[in-house]
Amino acid sequence: MMTNSLTVVGAGVIGLACAWRAAESGVAVTVLDPAPASGASWVAGGMLAPVTEAWPGEEELLELGVASVARWPGFAEELVAASGRPAGLRTEGTVVAATGTGDRAELDALAVYLGRLGRSVERLNGRELRRLEPALGPDVRGGLSVPGDLAVDNRVLLAALRAAAQRAGVTIVERAVRAVLDDGSRVTGVRTDDGDVQAGAVLVAAGAHSAGLHPALDGLVRPVKGEILRIAHRPGAFPPPRRTVRALVDGRPVYAVPRDDGGLVLGATQAELGFDTEVTVGGVRDLLRDAERILPGIAEYALLESAAGLRPGSPDNLPLVGALGPDGLLVATGHHRNGMLLAPVTADAVAALLRGEPVPDPVRAADPARFSYARR
Amino acid sequence: MMTNSLTVVGAGVIGLACAWRAAESGVAVTVLDPAPASGASWVAGGMLAPVTEAWPGEEELLELGVASVARWPGFAEELVAASGRPAGLRTEGTVVAATGTGDRAELDALAVYLGRLGRSVERLNGRELRRLEPALGPDVRGGLSVPGDLAVDNRVLLAALRAAAQRAGVTIVERAVRAVLDDGSRVTGVRTDDGDVQAGAVLVAAGAHSAGLHPALDGLVRPVKGEILRIAHRPGAFPPPRRTVRALVDGRPVYAVPRDDGGLVLGATQAELGFDTEVTVGGVRDLLRDAERILPGIAEYALLESAAGLRPGSPDNLPLVGALGPDGLLVATGHHRNGMLLAPVTADAVAALLRGEPVPDPVRAADPARFSYARR
Repeated sequence: MMTNSLTVVGAGVIGLACAWRAAESGVAVTVLDPAPASGASWVAGGMLAPVTEAWPGEEELLELGVASVARWPGFAEELVAASGRPAGLRTEGTVVAATGTGDRAELDALAVYLGRLGRSVERLNGRELRRLEPALGPDVRGGLSVPGDLAVDNRVLLAALRAAAQRAGVTIVERAVRAVLDDGSRVTGVRTDDGDVQAGAVLVAAGAHSAGLHPALDGLVRPVKGEILRIAHRPGAFPPPRRTVRALVDGRPVYAVPRDDGGLVLGATQAELGFDTEVTVGGVRDLLRDAERILPGIAEYALLESAAGLRPGSPDNLPLVGALGPDGLLVATGHHRNGMLLAPVTADAVAALLRGEPVPDPVRAADPARFSYARR
Repeated sequence: MMTNSLTVVGAGVIGLACAWRAAESGVAVTVLDPAPASGASWVAGGMLAPVTEAWPGEEELLELGVASVARWPGFAEELVAASGRPAGLRTEGTVVAATGTGDRAELDALAVYLGRLGRSVERLNGRELRRLEPALGPDVRGGLSVPGDLAVDNRVLLAALRAAAQRAGVTIVERAVRAVLDDGSRVTGVRTDDGDVQAGAVLVAAGAHSAGLHPALDGLVRPVKGEILRIAHRPGAFPPPRRTVRALVDGRPVYAVPRDDGGLVLGATQAELGFDTEVTVGGVRDLLRDAERILPGIAEYALLESAAGLRPGSPDNLPLVGALGPDGLLVATGHHRNGMLLAPVTADAVAALLRGEPVPDPVRAADPARFSYARR
């Protein structure tokens, strides 16, 4: 599909990144969102961590993530130049910590699995891990060092993407889209809270809200609730880690992503409860308990914020990036836990599609048509 | 001191209650506060609980509190009539729950102490307590029922006090006061962020910030930080208690104060860290852990808010209500954990002083001159 104008539904990290890239390549872009740069993108922890997120059976997602994290430093550099703002990238890397024997066995299995895929990770004992990150507590008995798994300050990133998009000529309109309209074969526009708007090409990048926007997306994206805490170092408290710290605590995953200002984002619970963004007592209790097991010094930190976001889950945990349904409909959604990570490859893929070119190789696995075949 | 005009420094529960009462008795009142109805009054849990707060050696505070809680229903009725708004009073009473044997022994000692003062409280075992409040968990082994200890929704109360004060002709000015000014023998005005304002009579009701306003208050009021959580029932979760629930959990006090809308206020930590209002990870962790031990159903509740307030602590835990220092200076501060409870008697006492009458009997113990004698 070649087009010179595009309506993007959703101003989260995916919508803004795609809008910026499309506008840079000469497309006239309008983005519609009732609250730009909010939702899951605003709540997110910001891990760019395909290797430590790897899961047996999800090799295509690992390849896609590895391609995108490799793309990240260049993407960040381009974004800084385009926006005149920092992009929020942190390149200190990631450590994974385990407490009990079960947790260590699970990390060992992950290391073996990654080794078989040719992605060796460094296994460390507790002392070696604490030498890297003295903030790790005595309950940490072993783990991994994965310097290639990075992180980004999601809020700094969103501000930069918004600025870059606007500098490139993107129009951002604060309005809710209720549906993508078509005439049976072609997209004709979008239905907003404020009337219908004509459009020949529409990109749905509405995260967890995508499924309700067009019948072709029905059942393909569901909300996966995640609760997160933002905490910050206080004078006299033990300094925060420099690397992203992921951990397994009695089988429960927890992470702490450092920010440049001494902040830490603790995450994340996972629950499928529909469009529920209330933070629960039990969720906060679990996050605090598990994070304190790994980083005991945070007891003295300030608790700044608790929030819940809705990750856009897909049936196979791979995103949906490509054409779907009527002519003129593109989707870039279903990124689940990986929206920040996959923003660069997703934006590149959408830009390629808009130029009428095929998507880059690892993005092919994300072709949303894979579900259309299954449905027939 | 008889006066027909008064400048009140501080628009918390004490400042607003005093301003309303003074204005009703014909005094022209101006209240100065950079952020009316905020601070400790906004953060508070709202217990009106002199008996379950009782502490050996603090009999004068107990008498003062008992006098004020007896005054509360009438005060609330008058406030509803004066403001045209609800006052937020809840009359369901209070239960105190204990978990371990040490906690039960401590409650038994409290019951014996109160009995000796002629204030018998009902001792209940775990089953009896759960019959009153099914939300209490199986770890609760015994405790007390104290129907006369009440509660108030502090935010509803503040709105009513503000409305009543304004209806009575009080002027509320959003401005910070830095000092009370005098000529060596008489009050002459207040120094604000926006210049000096003349005043012949000033009431300092600035809570934890009172000590810095005049040399006569130096060292008499200090900030005592308290962290608090606001949670709310969610569909499907176990219903909240109807009564205020206080508890000792392994020696740590915790309370849950119900609100009419299904909310619960969990509190409160206690720490002396100066003017520090950051909520800490450790404080929230303790509150959640201890409250869940007593009310396990709250795990499914929504966490709405975490906040810290600064209680105005006094050297002997009694408030300071009366004349102090130069002529024309009144103070109503140092209420520590009991600002909501003591608002009715404090406002009555200040109104009496403004009419040139002596304060009611139990308020005499709060005469701030008690510290002047000690200093000589």
